[in-house]
Amino acid sequence: MNTPNQDNRANQQRVAQSDTQASSITTVGSEAEASSGKPGPNHSFGVIGLGAMGFGAASSLLRAGFSVWGCDLRDTTRKAFSDLGGHSCLRAAELAHCDAVMVMVVNAAQTEAVLFEEQGLLGPDPQQSRMRAGSVILACATVAPDDARALATRVAEYGVLMLDTPVSGGPAKAAQASMTVMGSGPKQAFDKVKPLLDAVSARCYQLSEAIGVGSTVKMVNQLLAGVHIAAAAEAMALGIRSGADPHALYEVISHSAGNSWMFENRVPHILQGDYTPLSAVNIFVKDLGIVLDSARKLPFPLPLSATAHQMYLAASAAGHGLEDDAAVIQFFAKLTGIDLPAKQTDQG
Amino acid sequence: MNTPNQDNRANQQRVAQSDTQASSITTVGSEAEASSGKPGPNHSFGVIGLGAMGFGAASSLLRAGFSVWGCDLRDTTRKAFSDLGGHSCLRAAELAHCDAVMVMVVNAAQTEAVLFEEQGLLGPDPQQSRMRAGSVILACATVAPDDARALATRVAEYGVLMLDTPVSGGPAKAAQASMTVMGSGPKQAFDKVKPLLDAVSARCYQLSEAIGVGSTVKMVNQLLAGVHIAAAAEAMALGIRSGADPHALYEVISHSAGNSWMFENRVPHILQGDYTPLSAVNIFVKDLGIVLDSARKLPFPLPLSATAHQMYLAASAAGHGLEDDAAVIQFFAKLTGIDLPAKQTDQG
Repeated sequence: MNTPNQDNRANQQRVAQSDTQASSITTVGSEAEASSGKPGPNHSFGVIGLGAMGFGAASSLLRAGFSVWGCDLRDTTRKAFSDLGGHSCLRAAELAHCDAVMVMVVNAAQTEAVLFEEQGLLGPDPQQSRMRAGSVILACATVAPDDARALATRVAEYGVLMLDTPVSGGPAKAAQASMTVMGSGPKQAFDKVKPLLDAVSARCYQLSEAIGVGSTVKMVNQLLAGVHIAAAAEAMALGIRSGADPHALYEVISHSAGNSWMFENRVPHILQGDYTPLSAVNIFVKDLGIVLDSARKLPFPLPLSATAHQMYLAASAAGHGLEDDAAVIQFFAKLTGIDLPAKQTDQG
Repeated sequence: MNTPNQDNRANQQRVAQSDTQASSITTVGSEAEASSGKPGPNHSFGVIGLGAMGFGAASSLLRAGFSVWGCDLRDTTRKAFSDLGGHSCLRAAELAHCDAVMVMVVNAAQTEAVLFEEQGLLGPDPQQSRMRAGSVILACATVAPDDARALATRVAEYGVLMLDTPVSGGPAKAAQASMTVMGSGPKQAFDKVKPLLDAVSARCYQLSEAIGVGSTVKMVNQLLAGVHIAAAAEAMALGIRSGADPHALYEVISHSAGNSWMFENRVPHILQGDYTPLSAVNIFVKDLGIVLDSARKLPFPLPLSATAHQMYLAASAAGHGLEDDAAVIQFFAKLTGIDLPAKQTDQG
C-alpha cells in the first residue's frame, strides 16, 4: 500500500509466505499460462442472476468469445443482455445444456431455488438431472460455509460438480472482468472451468479441494469489510463533531496507519453526500448476519462484528437500508445531529 | 492501495479534493521548496523523550547537520545518543537555550511535567521562563484535543509558541526521518520550525491555525488504527477456528476489499507468532482511552471504539499488556483455545 510502513516485518513475512504458499494457493488469471482446459470458445457458459455482479461476469464471457446464456427475472435486464449478443432466459432450466453455470444470486436460499425448483437448473429429482454428468456449477453467492457444503452434497447427487467460488471486487471490477474469486473445490472442476475463470477474474484463488474454504475466506473478508465501513463512519462522525474538516480528515488518514481499503473507497461517498447505492446498507445487514450466524453455531464470539451489525441494523431501521453502505454514518447523524456534507449539485 | 477498486468514485473524488484542499492543507516535506526559515544548521534543536519515536527524530536532526540536545531519564539511551554526536541531558531545563524543542513523551501528564516542573523546560514560573520569548515547543505526544489546548494556553504565558504536532508512522519511519506530522497552530511558529520538520518528517500536514485540530485528526487516526488491529484479530481468529489456513487468509485478504493498513502490517506478527512489542497492547489501552474520554465529554457515542477498547483491556488483564498490540488476538485465543501459529525458531 502507498502508506507508511511502521516496520519491515510485514514485507519480510510477505516474501517468506510467497515461498511457502505456492503449493497451497493457486492463482489463475490473465498472467497465468494460456488455457489448456477442455471448454473453448465453442463451448457455452451460463450465468444465473444478472445483477450488479452477474451482468458484469456474463458480459465479460461474451467479450471473451463464448456463447453465453443469461437468466434473470427482470425483462429490462434480459433485453439489455440480448442487446449485447447474449441468450436471455427467464427460467434457469433453459441453461441446463451449458458446460458450466455461474450462480450469482443473493444468498443460499436463492441458490437452492434456482438449482432445485421445478424450473431449476438441475430440477427437483436427482434421478432426472437436467445438466449433463460432469458439468460444473459455480456457487458465487456469499453464503455460510455450512450452506456451501450442504449445497455441494445435494448437487453431487445429480452427478454434477460444484465449486465454492464466492467473488469480490464490486460491480465495476465485475464489468472489467477483474473480480477476485475466493475458490475451493475439486481440482478437476477448476481445470474444466479455467477458461471461464480467466475470462471473468483478475485473481482466482484455488484455496483447497474442500468445499467451504472459499466461503470461509469470503466470510472473513466480509467481516472486515463490514467492520471497516462502520469504523470509517464512526471515525468521520467523531472528527466532524470535534470540528475537523472532513476533507482534511480523509486526506490525512488515507495516507496514514488508520487507512483501510473501505475507508479510502467509501468515505468519498460521505464527502460528496452521495448515497446512491453501489452496495447497500442492507447487504451488510445480510452479510454480517451470515458471519454472526456461522460463528454462533461454532460457537465463537465476535464483539466487533456484532457491534457493527447493530449499526447497520440501526441505519436500516432509520430508513437508510437501500442507500449506499456508507449511509451507516446515519447511525451517528440521526442520534447526534452532526452536519454531514450535503450532496453536491452538478456544476457542469 | 495495491488492491482492487470497487468503483471509481474514490479516485475521482481524490482528484477533486486535491484541487479544493490546496488552500486548507499545507504539506511540507522533502519535495517542498528549500528552507527559507530562520533557524539553519547553526541553530540548535532539542528533543525531550528519546524513546522509540524520539530517538529516531533526534537522530534525524543530527544527520541533517543541526546541533541537537536530547533529554532522557535512561543512562543507556543518553549514552547511545552521545555516541551519535548528540548532547545528552538528564534534565529538560538543560534544553532551554534551544530554538525549538520537540516533546516526545507518552502522554499529557508527562508533557506537563517536563515543561513546568522545577527542572522543566520552562520552569514553574511564567514570569521566569527559561526559554527565550518566541522560541517554539512542539507537543508531539498523543493527547486529547482539550489537553493540547490547555497546554498551549499555559505555554503562551511564558511568551513561548506551541504547536500541536502529534506524529504517526512508528519507530522505523521515525528513524528514517519519514514520520507523518498531523499539525496545527500559528503559521508563524510553523515557519520558524520548517527546517526541523523537513528533517524529521516525510509529510507534515499544517491543518489549521487552531491548536487542537492536529490532536483531533491524530485521535481519529488512532480510533481507526485501534479498531482495525482488533478487527484483524477477530477476523483471523474466526478464520482459524473455521479451519482456514492463516497464511492463505492473509494472502487473500491483503489483496481484497477487507484489507487495512493495520491488517497488512500486524497480521504477520500473528503468523510468525512474534509478539515482540513494536507498539504494545497497553498503548491502545491508553490511546483508545483518550479517544473514549474525549468523546464522552462531548458527549458522543463510539460503539466500535468502546468494544475494541474492552478487547485490549482483556488482553492486558490476561497478562499481554506489554506484548505487541497484535496480541489483542489473545482475547480470542484465551477464551476459545484456538491454536495460534507458534513462534518460528531461527533456522539460520
